[in-house]
Amino acid sequence: MYNSQPTLIGRSRFSMKTYNLFFIGFGTIGRALAHLLQEKQSILQAGYAASFQLTGVATRRHGCAWNPAGLDMDGILRMADADGRIGKRSYEEAGLETLLKDSQADILVEITPTDRENGEPAASHIRTALRGGRHAVTANKGPVAYAYRELRDLARQADRRFLFEAAVMDGTPVFSLQRETLPAAGIIGFRAILNSTTNYLLTRMEKGMDFEEAVAAAQAVGIAETDPLADVEGWDAVLKVAALVNVMMDFPLAPAAITRQGIGMLDPAAVRRARAEDRPFKLVCRAVRTPNGVAGSVRPEQLSTDDPLASVSGTGTMLCIETDSLPGLIIGGTAPSPKTTAYGLLADLLAIVRAGPSQRSPF
Amino acid sequence: MYNSQPTLIGRSRFSMKTYNLFFIGFGTIGRALAHLLQEKQSILQAGYAASFQLTGVATRRHGCAWNPAGLDMDGILRMADADGRIGKRSYEEAGLETLLKDSQADILVEITPTDRENGEPAASHIRTALRGGRHAVTANKGPVAYAYRELRDLARQADRRFLFEAAVMDGTPVFSLQRETLPAAGIIGFRAILNSTTNYLLTRMEKGMDFEEAVAAAQAVGIAETDPLADVEGWDAVLKVAALVNVMMDFPLAPAAITRQGIGMLDPAAVRRARAEDRPFKLVCRAVRTPNGVAGSVRPEQLSTDDPLASVSGTGTMLCIETDSLPGLIIGGTAPSPKTTAYGLLADLLAIVRAGPSQRSPF
Repeated sequence: MYNSQPTLIGRSRFSMKTYNLFFIGFGTIGRALAHLLQEKQSILQAGYAASFQLTGVATRRHGCAWNPAGLDMDGILRMADADGRIGKRSYEEAGLETLLKDSQADILVEITPTDRENGEPAASHIRTALRGGRHAVTANKGPVAYAYRELRDLARQADRRFLFEAAVMDGTPVFSLQRETLPAAGIIGFRAILNSTTNYLLTRMEKGMDFEEAVAAAQAVGIAETDPLADVEGWDAVLKVAALVNVMMDFPLAPAAITRQGIGMLDPAAVRRARAEDRPFKLVCRAVRTPNGVAGSVRPEQLSTDDPLASVSGTGTMLCIETDSLPGLIIGGTAPSPKTTAYGLLADLLAIVRAGPSQRSPF
Repeated sequence: MYNSQPTLIGRSRFSMKTYNLFFIGFGTIGRALAHLLQEKQSILQAGYAASFQLTGVATRRHGCAWNPAGLDMDGILRMADADGRIGKRSYEEAGLETLLKDSQADILVEITPTDRENGEPAASHIRTALRGGRHAVTANKGPVAYAYRELRDLARQADRRFLFEAAVMDGTPVFSLQRETLPAAGIIGFRAILNSTTNYLLTRMEKGMDFEEAVAAAQAVGIAETDPLADVEGWDAVLKVAALVNVMMDFPLAPAAITRQGIGMLDPAAVRRARAEDRPFKLVCRAVRTPNGVAGSVRPEQLSTDDPLASVSGTGTMLCIETDSLPGLIIGGTAPSPKTTAYGLLADLLAIVRAGPSQRSPF
């Protein structure tokens, strides 16, 4: 165990409880969470009186497996790493509702690829879990951007939790920051850099690369998708703005209602000049209350170098929140990775553990 | 009420409860908290089923007043603003223990000036409150820097809380960030800018002022004390580093054990040159785990402009935390004021409300 004193938040004075997890999707994030659960096993037991066992895994390409007595995590990881089949049946054929029942899952861990147009299939997976009386945690921004209120209300009715700390800013505490540390504070608006890829591309372009070279570099280090359009054109950022507004500002802002302009048409020479003039370009996300609700935007802006957002380099992200009690609050992450995203999911799992038998809360 | 949706965290489904507050010290922060409690009254009742009433105030220069049925907050504020006497008796003469009993206080709000050499009299005030079975919240860093473990253990024995969110970074959630949003994360170390005054002075010096002009400017806007030595020589930052290490890294680091170098001997010309060369000076606080525990330091350092700490201008503060799960986590505040400090105290009061009848927790 690492030579440091982990925070103990929880219910160690209560009796040990085992939570059955069902992973839907088992890509990089799922594997990182599996490894993190193994790494943190002793502190989870000592500090939270909780142990988590994997009782089901469903993937689109590798089939699915379940066992209410617990699957062999190492075996699953070995098969996944070897890109082999986890099980013969596909989960479409089995049906998620049945799989959750057969695996006696307490919590659905939703980590499938999501459709930026509608947040599916993640939203439906979460719906199914909550309707079946199971908690749902996800690293997907889609369901939070498109279906937050419905899923939040479903969770309340079922006295279960719908949590998504990892959906924005790769595991940096954002939603829990507001939920747990900003009591009675009204959020007026925010400015943020939420998309790592475009920030990385701009940083590369400032150092002399043209757009295509920067994209190639980003793809080489695994930052940019094969199709970088969702990032470059601001779609990823738009969904994250919608998610933050829906949850933190309690206003249902549709992604389509957010002004969107990507970095695709920026001239690399202009990007270099802007940095040289200490007025760097960033893909800036904004949300602010208006008489009619909340207005959101994602667009390239030139920032002054004493603007905290201007200091976000490489794959970093940062959120500057204006509240009626704390005018200038900053939260940021400088080193996103599958492990930090997995940590966001673990934090959600522990929020469920901490709440104990009843998950009812006024929000 | 402000046109925004405050977060509702708490126990609104429980019955309304009134908490009796005793303020010891009633300067700028005490008045800001009194105003904030009035401003937030409706949301506290609606969202937390809590109401706070002032049942005692003790000051060194203006005497003290108490009434278990509740004091007239407006009247007290008017007298304080008019710099008049709150009551005839001095609290030394009455004795805090008696005053807390006579005022039937549930929570001591400790906001007296603190001695940087030993954290007194704040630590003794808090000791008295906890021994008497009362919660204690403070904006004082002294007791957290010098007596954290003793006071934490006293609080646990009494099943009461000792909270101090406002003691470092003026109300920006720091201690609650770790307590509530970083479960099972081990903190390896941190880098930070924690002293507003020196950061403001450096910013002024970069813009052409010499040291004395900068100090005068800071005093003119009420940032620097009449005796700026505690800030300039790094004492304030040292106590904040000790407080953060004691609590967040669970290691008892004495302020005297922290390497301290202030900005007093910095040559203004060098400060200007450093900024011009994009290697600005900042008074940087550091803590890192070592084989023997934790090493802390406060000293001027030149930072690269893509270092988030380099973007902290004016009176801002920022903390960059390295954990075993989130390698680069940033929390910062850009607009400190008596109101933000008061908000930190309010957040502590609401943490007590949220915990309900028993305050026991494993940390």
